[in-house]
Amino acid sequence: MTPIEYIESRRDANLAELVEFLKIPSISTQSEHKADVERAARWVVEKLRGQFETVELIPTKGHPLVYAQSQQIPGKPTVLFYGHYDVQPSEPDNLWTTPAFEPSVRGGNLYGRGAVDDKGQVHIHLAAFEALTKTEGRLPVNVKVIIEGEEEVGGAALNAYVREQKERLRADVLVVSDTSMLAPGVPSVTYAIRGLNYYQIELTGPAQDLHSGVFGGAVPNPLTILAELFAKLHDKNFRVTVPGFYDDVATLTKTERRALNSLPWKLSTFKKNVGAPALSGEKGYSVVEQLWCRPTLELNGMWGGYMSEGAKTVIPSKAWAKFSTRLVPNQKPEKIARQVEKYIRKLLPKTVHCKIEVLSRGKPWVAPYNHPYFEAAHRALEKGFGKKAVFIREGGSIPFVTDMYDAYKIPCILMGFGLPDENAHAPDEHISLENYFGGIKAAAHFYQELARA
Amino acid sequence: MTPIEYIESRRDANLAELVEFLKIPSISTQSEHKADVERAARWVVEKLRGQFETVELIPTKGHPLVYAQSQQIPGKPTVLFYGHYDVQPSEPDNLWTTPAFEPSVRGGNLYGRGAVDDKGQVHIHLAAFEALTKTEGRLPVNVKVIIEGEEEVGGAALNAYVREQKERLRADVLVVSDTSMLAPGVPSVTYAIRGLNYYQIELTGPAQDLHSGVFGGAVPNPLTILAELFAKLHDKNFRVTVPGFYDDVATLTKTERRALNSLPWKLSTFKKNVGAPALSGEKGYSVVEQLWCRPTLELNGMWGGYMSEGAKTVIPSKAWAKFSTRLVPNQKPEKIARQVEKYIRKLLPKTVHCKIEVLSRGKPWVAPYNHPYFEAAHRALEKGFGKKAVFIREGGSIPFVTDMYDAYKIPCILMGFGLPDENAHAPDEHISLENYFGGIKAAAHFYQELARA
Repeated sequence: MTPIEYIESRRDANLAELVEFLKIPSISTQSEHKADVERAARWVVEKLRGQFETVELIPTKGHPLVYAQSQQIPGKPTVLFYGHYDVQPSEPDNLWTTPAFEPSVRGGNLYGRGAVDDKGQVHIHLAAFEALTKTEGRLPVNVKVIIEGEEEVGGAALNAYVREQKERLRADVLVVSDTSMLAPGVPSVTYAIRGLNYYQIELTGPAQDLHSGVFGGAVPNPLTILAELFAKLHDKNFRVTVPGFYDDVATLTKTERRALNSLPWKLSTFKKNVGAPALSGEKGYSVVEQLWCRPTLELNGMWGGYMSEGAKTVIPSKAWAKFSTRLVPNQKPEKIARQVEKYIRKLLPKTVHCKIEVLSRGKPWVAPYNHPYFEAAHRALEKGFGKKAVFIREGGSIPFVTDMYDAYKIPCILMGFGLPDENAHAPDEHISLENYFGGIKAAAHFYQELARA
Repeated sequence: MTPIEYIESRRDANLAELVEFLKIPSISTQSEHKADVERAARWVVEKLRGQFETVELIPTKGHPLVYAQSQQIPGKPTVLFYGHYDVQPSEPDNLWTTPAFEPSVRGGNLYGRGAVDDKGQVHIHLAAFEALTKTEGRLPVNVKVIIEGEEEVGGAALNAYVREQKERLRADVLVVSDTSMLAPGVPSVTYAIRGLNYYQIELTGPAQDLHSGVFGGAVPNPLTILAELFAKLHDKNFRVTVPGFYDDVATLTKTERRALNSLPWKLSTFKKNVGAPALSGEKGYSVVEQLWCRPTLELNGMWGGYMSEGAKTVIPSKAWAKFSTRLVPNQKPEKIARQVEKYIRKLLPKTVHCKIEVLSRGKPWVAPYNHPYFEAAHRALEKGFGKKAVFIREGGSIPFVTDMYDAYKIPCILMGFGLPDENAHAPDEHISLENYFGGIKAAAHFYQELARA
């Protein structure tokens, strides 16, 4: 029996096993689920036992890590597979068609929290490992596996472990399945992600909240000043006005631009998913370029003054905003943070005090997708799905990828089996069964292709 | 015993009674406090019983009204005293030195929500009524009392009652204590107030919250659009840009402008009370003029997106603001509301849906302050406080005054015992005990002076 025949024969068994995995409410951000999170980690450990020489549950200050390492095969590359077994909270539960932790198949999809982010995609690799070891006695390459339980809370455990155990995790290539395919029927390898700086600003005008009748007309209103500030951070073409913001942005080659813009990506589907009266983005770029290749400055939250029912005639003392800059190669997070803060301080009037914090910084990342390992992934996807595969970029940020790239300078292959509308982080999260089963075959092919690359 | 001697003898008793009144959290805008609001109304009813021939708790569609009427004395003028027993919300509670509804005396002031706006000032008159009836057997003039519970929410109950019971409320003069003295030691009669329109706006961009990595750069962000909108509503001289906004503003006479600008009002005290790094107002007008004689457009609240601890990379579907326009003679609330809504709709891009609500409308008002009843009030204040009194205007809004003026065309006397820095509508609201006790004497003198006017 070939690995692919084995995978075909195990459709129902694999699906039943994934359902079992999804039933564990491993919500990493809610302390009442701490035991469930650990249960999910142990479930992964049990599943890896038998296929791997070493399998460990590694306690941390937060949720445990799962580490596994296959029997060493000299002369073969070493691949590090990364995933996470923790999930987002299920709330609002009333918006789920079937309960978040009672997985259910409907219309060719498997519904349940973690179905696509990321338990379903982790299980794709677990099932591929099993198929390879059961049919061929061992994995075709050296495989290391690291599965964390703090991805959804931005926990520090994994990064600390990478720093402490740098040699242990060393590999020739990293593979991650935690992203999406471009569209149904279009298997995709992601070769670039945007970086992310996240900021918080607090403006203080009056020393305390004031009555807008008694004081209105003569005192600075920090909400108005905050509005005026953010109005100045984009020009009429929706370009960010921070001086120097675009200085380090790498110019897209004509070839890459043409490739990205001719992908089988439908604007009409995107518009439908967004549901706004119209789109809005930087002039001079296609929507695909705006999403994947252009930096942004985005308000993520803003608040101040009276926000409850009815009316309160207050001039607030303070106003706040949370905002972020998505960064593209070769923007530097530290430099951008300095430029943003400097420009904001320059724009603000003398009537308010300002406090700016940078809550996090994250680099953009791009890979040369003509590397042999990328080509191996591309071939594996075409074999697994029987469809043409594409190279895409991604607008979001995966800190682990840039951290690993910085630590080891190895190719990082993002082979995502999700779809953009599968409600990761939202009610009715699901994964397409076609992509789940195709993914298992593609993953098995990928480890075989790597052995030949 | 004279009424004034009686008042002196009842200092502690009156203060204890006010504390009891302030303990009732009669927050009219929060539905969970509906029972407390009614409790405050009943408290007023109990207090009026004994002094007045008729005392009624009048149910309405919203919060109840309290009405009282003294025994009729032929040949004497009828005065209608107006106040409100409802209060603003206490949030943010953590900024109160002592809890909002646990009144506490510190440094010659009584702290607590409603201490000055308006329960404390209502109680000044209740104590004066008691002193007059206990010492002289009856009030020196015909007194009608109407105390409402919807002042802080701009409720319709009182206005409906005035329309239905026009004859019942008819009087020769209206007296209201819901304003401030110009400064400590300067008893004041207010002869003009600003009107108030209060608005709420809701912008909707995407149909649901979106991931700012996956979607950022190509979709409209309602928070950014809200910021851009409010940035356009003032010009660089801090004039409101709504077309026609200033068309109906009455020009101040040179005499009035000179009188207002030579009042014993200290800019340095005002600046200290505000506590902002600098003041900010419409160019070409003194601060006193900006506060009392010029219209404003002010953000009272703004919110949307992620507002909790840490970071969430969201593009919100919706953004909200609460804002208000303070109006001066002879601006018309309906016309201004139309102009504001029309201009906002014109400014907004096609990328968002917009919902605008006018939560309340209120006219500005100005009186001829040389009327004999105004002079009676001026004399009563000088007697009660033993200090020179002044005529001032006020930036706040008291819809009832304009409604009553429209209905009866009678002089409306605003005899305020608050101070501008007593944090009405803010944490640590308080009233000066000197003004509270002086106010009771001045109010008693006022009813006596009216009998002679």
